Amino acid sequence: MTHDNNTLHINAFLMGVGHHEAAWRHPRTEAHRVLDVAHYQELARIAERGRLDSIFFADNLAVGAYVKRNVHTVFEPITLLSAIAPVTEKIGLIATASTSYHEPYALARAFASLDHLSNGRAGWNIVTSGTEAEAFNFGYDAIPEHARRYARAEEFVDVAEQLWDSWEPGALVLDADEGVFADPGKVHAVDYAGERFRVRGPLNSPRSPQGRPLLVQAGSSEDGKEFAARHAEAVFTAQQTLAEGQAFYRDLKDRLARHGRAEGDLKVLPGLVPFIADTEAEAVALQQEFTGLISPDYALRQLSTMLGLDLTAYPLDRPLPPLPDESAVEGQKSRFTLVKQLAAGRELTVRQLIGELGGGRGHRTLAGTPEQIADDLETWFRGGAADGFNIMPPYLPGGLTDFVERVVPILQRRGLFRTEYTATTLRGHYGLAPVPNRFADAVPATA
Amino acid sequence: MTHDNNTLHINAFLMGVGHHEAAWRHPRTEAHRVLDVAHYQELARIAERGRLDSIFFADNLAVGAYVKRNVHTVFEPITLLSAIAPVTEKIGLIATASTSYHEPYALARAFASLDHLSNGRAGWNIVTSGTEAEAFNFGYDAIPEHARRYARAEEFVDVAEQLWDSWEPGALVLDADEGVFADPGKVHAVDYAGERFRVRGPLNSPRSPQGRPLLVQAGSSEDGKEFAARHAEAVFTAQQTLAEGQAFYRDLKDRLARHGRAEGDLKVLPGLVPFIADTEAEAVALQQEFTGLISPDYALRQLSTMLGLDLTAYPLDRPLPPLPDESAVEGQKSRFTLVKQLAAGRELTVRQLIGELGGGRGHRTLAGTPEQIADDLETWFRGGAADGFNIMPPYLPGGLTDFVERVVPILQRRGLFRTEYTATTLRGHYGLAPVPNRFADAVPATA
Repeated sequence: MTHDNNTLHINAFLMGVGHHEAAWRHPRTEAHRVLDVAHYQELARIAERGRLDSIFFADNLAVGAYVKRNVHTVFEPITLLSAIAPVTEKIGLIATASTSYHEPYALARAFASLDHLSNGRAGWNIVTSGTEAEAFNFGYDAIPEHARRYARAEEFVDVAEQLWDSWEPGALVLDADEGVFADPGKVHAVDYAGERFRVRGPLNSPRSPQGRPLLVQAGSSEDGKEFAARHAEAVFTAQQTLAEGQAFYRDLKDRLARHGRAEGDLKVLPGLVPFIADTEAEAVALQQEFTGLISPDYALRQLSTMLGLDLTAYPLDRPLPPLPDESAVEGQKSRFTLVKQLAAGRELTVRQLIGELGGGRGHRTLAGTPEQIADDLETWFRGGAADGFNIMPPYLPGGLTDFVERVVPILQRRGLFRTEYTATTLRGHYGLAPVPNRFADAVPATA
Repeated sequence: MTHDNNTLHINAFLMGVGHHEAAWRHPRTEAHRVLDVAHYQELARIAERGRLDSIFFADNLAVGAYVKRNVHTVFEPITLLSAIAPVTEKIGLIATASTSYHEPYALARAFASLDHLSNGRAGWNIVTSGTEAEAFNFGYDAIPEHARRYARAEEFVDVAEQLWDSWEPGALVLDADEGVFADPGKVHAVDYAGERFRVRGPLNSPRSPQGRPLLVQAGSSEDGKEFAARHAEAVFTAQQTLAEGQAFYRDLKDRLARHGRAEGDLKVLPGLVPFIADTEAEAVALQQEFTGLISPDYALRQLSTMLGLDLTAYPLDRPLPPLPDESAVEGQKSRFTLVKQLAAGRELTVRQLIGELGGGRGHRTLAGTPEQIADDLETWFRGGAADGFNIMPPYLPGGLTDFVERVVPILQRRGLFRTEYTATTLRGHYGLAPVPNRFADAVPATA
């Protein structure tokens, strides 16, 4: 086992009134709450009651595929989490932000600010924005190539890490008598001159409590996995079977040593959409209620976006048409392959595929009792497929409340999950060491 | 009188532990609070107790002139105000953000998010970032020319306004039974194709409570005034004398008609740094305590930055050397001219000038009793030099508390200031009409 303390980690991935695409139509939700910051604050407090490691918001810099039926994002994640920080105390706050359409200085600064105002609870889910709709909002005529997006991400994170280090620990002096605010010898220019970015620094923010946000990544393409192996401290991933989960886990962990990292430095968190009820039959019936509310015209458009293929007029009761190889895709490669495998492996019709994807857009869905959900998590955790889980409640707040009140206590009784927070920072929750500072911790060349 | 309701408006400009550059060294402050979000939340609540229209944070995308002695910004304004929104209910929240170093889609979205999560209290102080240090952090070798920065700002605001309009009021349907989230006929692409930006839209956020943030501007150069006349709804300005204030006020108001705007559509808010005490002598003595704590080496560097001229080795007890014309300045033109006039008009030595600038970097400082401060504000307001004021407490929180508890009640007794909030949005506080929507309110061409 490579797990620290044999306990698992849990992130709550929060989305509107639930991950299921028809959640907002079900009587267990109230659709208008997607617009209400108090709804998200309540979700964060529920997750914190469960002692979860973190909450997380995804993002997309464009309107969704089909605005008529798409419960749309209202809040930008960094601002939303800034508004959640004051009403929570311990839980980590992970925001998605794109390296393709921001500037490193401004984004590094926003995350430093979130880390300051949450007292060390900020995390950054690094994305490269793989949709055409996003490219069109930032002056491009097409999606920038996958490899170019990752090359930019690489430089972006490199600059950002240097900026976060630019104020050493102890740079703040705050000596009012002598009038010395900071020690200029501990505040460093970074003088970054790369292919895409030139940034002098230092960052316009003293070092934040964690030094920098927790770095999170979610792409599972070859580029994505290499990027994760170099930079990520937590990885969200969609894996449908235990065997696939184990293979992905091993693949990612095996890449770490090449980058001078230990296996514990990166936590693998597969996604799970849990439908929870007193009996398995009730849980399955609940899931079917949601599936029955899917609008096929919306689901077809969403599927078309995932595959980069217009399926809106395609017959529902036939299998998918032949799909190209992942190498031909410039958008979201790993999601493409996942959907392709899901459909091919079980010979699903388009209608069946839409139902399977409805819960979590490619993430694994499981309907069962609290014990069954806990058993499943334990199997993946002990089976070397996960360091923890990215829990994606199909409806909110109820699906999160059920997980926290019914599944978490079982995991706690089994010794698999904390009963109290033992750390104050997001890095601490995930069992990660403090971030070293390249300036303060550098060994002098002449030592 | 052009004032609506004959009542004035008050913005609290909050900066660290006070606007006076030596505030952090004075026993009335605690320097470490610059790092504490709770400090800024407390300031916002004090301002809200005083029924002030808004609070405001400035920003600069680089470290200050002299990190050793410069009490440095910690928080990015949009994230900080997002963390203040949950602990306040009514007061407006104005954040500075640069048009030179952001992308319009991302920034428009961040402000929409702040407006949503504050229920209609967001404001944007639009700046073009006139320092070399900022340019170096965003890939430039020098400050982009003043005129080019303003041309970009013009396009930027144009795109942003179209994006904010892209979801008409009523676009959200939220019909769970029919599965209709939004009315696609009321969600519009903007297809912006300008010299600098190409943005398809729509914005990835339904229309926010105010439609868009209140637009605020603070540059007083010719470009700045024209920009304000076209776009700004509130203007922060530094004016040293009543006559200068009246001239600036008239100049700005006279420009509005050319852009189809009424005088009430733009509120002029001169800055004031008030030292408040029981007697005038005590207030003057208090101001002198702060002046005495100024570090000349820091003040000289700051003055050098304002003037674009190295004065760090210049003798303190001589007048300024001859200064070029504003037209030769590519940085912050209006601040340059203000300092030049302040020094020349009163034949100040550099040491005296540093003392004058210590309170508010060119903003007017006034030491007096609460009655004297109130008299002064009333004189400017009734004298046609102000629609309200940008109050810059020299030390915090005490200087704000004194203003709210001692000056505001006098203004209220005189009928010059509200005793309760009568609106729920920032626009409402400033007496501005709701923002029309270009799509919803357009008269059909064939009507």
